[in-house]
Amino acid sequence: MKCSVIKVPAAAPHDTSGLKASIEAGIIDPAHVVAVLGKTEGNGCVNDFTRGYAVMALKQFFAPHSADGQAAVSYIMSGGTEGILSPHFTVMSRSGLPETAEAGLGLKSLAIGVSRTRDFLPEELGRLSQVDAVAEAVSRAVHDAGIASAEDVHFVQIKCPLLTAEQIHEAHGRKAELVTEDTYKSMGYSRGASALGVAVALGEVGREGLRDEQICVNWELYSTVASTSAGSELSCCEIIVFGNSSAAEGPYFIDHDVMKDSIDGAALQRMIDRHAGDELIQVLAKAEADPSGYVRERRHTMLDDSDINHTRHARAVVGGVLAYVCGDPMIYVSGGGEHQGPAGGGPVAAIFRRNQ
Amino acid sequence: MKCSVIKVPAAAPHDTSGLKASIEAGIIDPAHVVAVLGKTEGNGCVNDFTRGYAVMALKQFFAPHSADGQAAVSYIMSGGTEGILSPHFTVMSRSGLPETAEAGLGLKSLAIGVSRTRDFLPEELGRLSQVDAVAEAVSRAVHDAGIASAEDVHFVQIKCPLLTAEQIHEAHGRKAELVTEDTYKSMGYSRGASALGVAVALGEVGREGLRDEQICVNWELYSTVASTSAGSELSCCEIIVFGNSSAAEGPYFIDHDVMKDSIDGAALQRMIDRHAGDELIQVLAKAEADPSGYVRERRHTMLDDSDINHTRHARAVVGGVLAYVCGDPMIYVSGGGEHQGPAGGGPVAAIFRRNQ
Amino acid sequence: MKCSVIKVPAAAPHDTSGLKASIEAGIIDPAHVVAVLGKTEGNGCVNDFTRGYAVMALKQFFAPHSADGQAAVSYIMSGGTEGILSPHFTVMSRSGLPETAEAGLGLKSLAIGVSRTRDFLPEELGRLSQVDAVAEAVSRAVHDAGIASAEDVHFVQIKCPLLTAEQIHEAHGRKAELVTEDTYKSMGYSRGASALGVAVALGEVGREGLRDEQICVNWELYSTVASTSAGSELSCCEIIVFGNSSAAEGPYFIDHDVMKDSIDGAALQRMIDRHAGDELIQVLAKAEADPSGYVRERRHTMLDDSDINHTRHARAVVGGVLAYVCGDPMIYVSGGGEHQGPAGGGPVAAIFRRNQ
Amino acid sequence: MKCSVIKVPAAAPHDTSGLKASIEAGIIDPAHVVAVLGKTEGNGCVNDFTRGYAVMALKQFFAPHSADGQAAVSYIMSGGTEGILSPHFTVMSRSGLPETAEAGLGLKSLAIGVSRTRDFLPEELGRLSQVDAVAEAVSRAVHDAGIASAEDVHFVQIKCPLLTAEQIHEAHGRKAELVTEDTYKSMGYSRGASALGVAVALGEVGREGLRDEQICVNWELYSTVASTSAGSELSCCEIIVFGNSSAAEGPYFIDHDVMKDSIDGAALQRMIDRHAGDELIQVLAKAEADPSGYVRERRHTMLDDSDINHTRHARAVVGGVLAYVCGDPMIYVSGGGEHQGPAGGGPVAAIFRRNQ
Repeated sequence: MKCSVIKVPAAAPHDTSGLKASIEAGIIDPAHVVAVLGKTEGNGCVNDFTRGYAVMALKQFFAPHSADGQAAVSYIMSGGTEGILSPHFTVMSRSGLPETAEAGLGLKSLAIGVSRTRDFLPEELGRLSQVDAVAEAVSRAVHDAGIASAEDVHFVQIKCPLLTAEQIHEAHGRKAELVTEDTYKSMGYSRGASALGVAVALGEVGREGLRDEQICVNWELYSTVASTSAGSELSCCEIIVFGNSSAAEGPYFIDHDVMKDSIDGAALQRMIDRHAGDELIQVLAKAEADPSGYVRERRHTMLDDSDINHTRHARAVVGGVLAYVCGDPMIYVSGGGEHQGPAGGGPVAAIFRRNQ
Repeated sequence: MKCSVIKVPAAAPHDTSGLKASIEAGIIDPAHVVAVLGKTEGNGCVNDFTRGYAVMALKQFFAPHSADGQAAVSYIMSGGTEGILSPHFTVMSRSGLPETAEAGLGLKSLAIGVSRTRDFLPEELGRLSQVDAVAEAVSRAVHDAGIASAEDVHFVQIKCPLLTAEQIHEAHGRKAELVTEDTYKSMGYSRGASALGVAVALGEVGREGLRDEQICVNWELYSTVASTSAGSELSCCEIIVFGNSSAAEGPYFIDHDVMKDSIDGAALQRMIDRHAGDELIQVLAKAEADPSGYVRERRHTMLDDSDINHTRHARAVVGGVLAYVCGDPMIYVSGGGEHQGPAGGGPVAAIFRRNQ
Repeated sequence: MKCSVIKVPAAAPHDTSGLKASIEAGIIDPAHVVAVLGKTEGNGCVNDFTRGYAVMALKQFFAPHSADGQAAVSYIMSGGTEGILSPHFTVMSRSGLPETAEAGLGLKSLAIGVSRTRDFLPEELGRLSQVDAVAEAVSRAVHDAGIASAEDVHFVQIKCPLLTAEQIHEAHGRKAELVTEDTYKSMGYSRGASALGVAVALGEVGREGLRDEQICVNWELYSTVASTSAGSELSCCEIIVFGNSSAAEGPYFIDHDVMKDSIDGAALQRMIDRHAGDELIQVLAKAEADPSGYVRERRHTMLDDSDINHTRHARAVVGGVLAYVCGDPMIYVSGGGEHQGPAGGGPVAAIFRRNQ
Repeated sequence: MKCSVIKVPAAAPHDTSGLKASIEAGIIDPAHVVAVLGKTEGNGCVNDFTRGYAVMALKQFFAPHSADGQAAVSYIMSGGTEGILSPHFTVMSRSGLPETAEAGLGLKSLAIGVSRTRDFLPEELGRLSQVDAVAEAVSRAVHDAGIASAEDVHFVQIKCPLLTAEQIHEAHGRKAELVTEDTYKSMGYSRGASALGVAVALGEVGREGLRDEQICVNWELYSTVASTSAGSELSCCEIIVFGNSSAAEGPYFIDHDVMKDSIDGAALQRMIDRHAGDELIQVLAKAEADPSGYVRERRHTMLDDSDINHTRHARAVVGGVLAYVCGDPMIYVSGGGEHQGPAGGGPVAAIFRRNQ
């Protein structure tokens, strides 16, 4: 198996000209594309249609390249390019299968695995049944990637469902009790339960003792590698696992660390220092306004701002800090970090290209 | 002369409880306060009333402490605490006069000087006559501070007028031609001309050859120490010069550097490295969205965002980057940097307390 | 008793020049001012400091006019002048006491009564104990106004407390269970319980059968005359009742109707038609985005807009509709109408001046 | 010739399910569709991608229905459904050609004509050469519609180009002087020049005496039927003329009036009264914040609001007022009314279905 990561600028949500150029230049082989992670320039909140617009354009773009006219690509669009964040697509490709024979080599390369859960009932969202289904699917994706141990998993991107008005209505008809009646809040619960599913699968949080009431309440439970985003276009969870494996080859590899708050650029700096000599290809991070209302014991105003959603503030800050550290504003910083890293902080992963 | 700088958190624009506590603790002597620079939590744009609210509260607060019931304090409020920026007041105090006798000591300390220009006619704003008047007043303030040379000037804060609707109307009656008919734009012109006045006074830009048409057009002309903000409450420019002088004593001193773009945290890092061992007290910086639409050759979306003013994006980024570098979100980052540092970048000053 | 209502434009939140002019012209006697209802130009949401700014300016303004240096004026500021709404103050004055002797005349005039509840414990907010205390205080204010029956009450303005972070913390310490842990939501609960208190006092909703769980849930329970707003500056509810009484004299009187949705201008039109020949002085209305997501069976997007708070949309609409009907954009339209009129609609009151 | 107008709700910018249902129900014949006017739920400003998203979805939808796989439909999307405005598509259809023979009948029906100008050079935008080219094309569209006189023209929708950053750069290379260097402002100039082109074609403004300097300056020059919107996807102007003609048949007809300000609902009321007994099908109107800063001599705050663009405020108001008058929030209200109706007001057209 050989996996690669290429990032391509986008002049607008639907701009596929950069992808076209990369394919024509032989940098991307559309037949091998597994996932496209995009940063689009909407508000990243409820009425952000740049995500759907990008997906419509990407599906049109990749359709001719797939056998059945519909490439099996996972599209994960994160809205919000506040501050210096620059709209772009990160294209993840994979060819071949994990080769268990060569396990002796010692050198581990980037390995990507995918899986999905069954569809959920509305009343499962934000609860342990979602956690368990995600945990099981993450384990499958880790196996699919040929990753040998949990320590080699560095980033787990999950696209999860939310509760729509219709689903809430339908559940009411069945007298099913939902975790929330609020569409917007259901996004947080679904992201949180998905992240805890990752934590359980990787042994970061113990399954025994975990209770429904802790989801989106007890922020001391978290995964250091989960990155989850909710969308209305699916009823299951789609999982992409990124890690390193001796069953994979090629120059790419991935690492991760944890930002303890939104100005903790040292987390990325440590990785850059660890892999000095290698080329940093992409940074993937989660951002959130510290729910305590304080950062480094100083009051922030993000949560009280009725003009700008706090997730927008947080992305601007984390984007700026990480861009300073790595020197590049074209990085993936996504908002809404329930159970993804500590409260107010978040996971940060970095993909490198080995210099031989 | 002895100058000091204290920063005090504010729980709201009108919160003077921190100031009260500092006075009661003997940290601030209200009789010596020369200026209060505030970060207030409004939008920092046209309809930001948190600035006026803070000034009303501060005037009420300081009134009993002045002989004539109206302390001669300069209040400079900068709206906008986007991202992690934390609302606060920076209190600048000065006691005594520059002591020219002790010039031999060699050790230079923080020196603060103040001055003001005459009132301007509406048609002078944003033009060379404003530049010249500011340049002359800056020179006076430098002298007032007992600062010996331009290299010892590290920050010049100017509060300058703007064109109000009434002034535009009055000027029309006299057939006077204004630099702009737009109230909002007049703020930029006034800030820009004031900054060029600083540059001329300090020899950063030559007066000969300077023409009206270059103001707010030719961004290659700039001061590396000017920080200017426009307000409707005055018709002249109020100038506060910060520098180091051997005629001043005490542990405080100031330095400055230039951010070449909004993620250039290295500018502050260099100062911290230069003065390792001394305590960083406060950071003062200007932020702006790069007018080219690009940062480090990556497209940014700040200028096209019709939901969030680009100055708000820029403050969030610069605030985050500098807070990471210095470890403190309670710093002064202000927007609107016409002719204040290079396009997209800006001056950054740092006040230190010498560790003996 | 003689009551009057004067409205005065404001050029900014702290602009008292219009009030000064009205006093100098003898239109307002500051000694008789009971309440000032203001529309200020902030966002009307959490971080709207224009309300506090206006109150600080108004207190300074009225202080010299009161015997004890602190006039007993109730200041009720509603933020948000979206669309054509024009910032202003409505000054309510009252002199003398209800004169029960003249009850035979038949002609009823504007009567204003005031009262306040005891301070509430945090756990009382948004619950029946708040409802009951408000109901009792409303009855007292009705009596204070000399209003004979519930049908003669046309507008009840209540300023009610909210839960602050500190109060939530304090209640936690006592193991007290609060209606919500969310500061912003506590505003809605407090407004809702206050409105139900009005409804109970005036017989619009029966007290028996009313349960805690219906507050901010069952929107079929509402008052047609309540207008409530929450603020952090008080711990009790302040109540002002407006109605007509034969124990009052003078040319002013008040009427009310109910807007069934936010474009139901016919409610105001009916009042204008009923009192053709009399001069309309002021309109007081509540606005809210229909929680169903639909207006007249058409989908609206106010609740999904992450850039503009739905209360801002709603005020813009109701303000525009009512200004068209009455021909004046300087009217009082306030947001957040829990249990104040039907879901999506709201009470509208109109104060007239009788033409003799 | 037979023309019809059908409006269809949209659940999202890309929702074509309503169109599909209308076609399946035989209400719309896709082969006859001439234009789709949409209201989409973006911010209606620079970074509103809901317009492009809708057009991408509509093109995909209509493609199978056209002979050459690309239906000759004009898509005009107006972003911004502030307040109660409800996202929808208005589908304009036309079959047959104007039949001059039947001119004697006297009964005039809805007639639609289309045309387009040549592509413009960047330096032509916002100037008389754009005005002239539009005027000529409007005359052709009027003829295409079989409309006999200017009085029978009631709405002229124009989609016009704007200056992109690349065009500005290219023009600089040729030393061509542009009307503005600002992309956003070029939208206003292009809309304004297009509207004046309509005014010239219909005799509302005289061509002689018209000068470049009056465009977007002299607001006393305007058309009462022009509705223009700028987009970056074309270099020419696309024109659709709506009027009544005795050479057209069918139950639909159109009328128009002028709102003198944004709360002038009487303009629509007059048309409804004139055509009492006929069914109102759709309302088409332009909205803008009065540039004077006042509506009915009351100060408004729309132009000073740095959080919400003034066009958003204006659409909320005009939408609310017109929805009250006609009882339907699913109407077309578009912003940016340079030379389209008087300053602060705008044209309003109404399409009716005759009740026989």
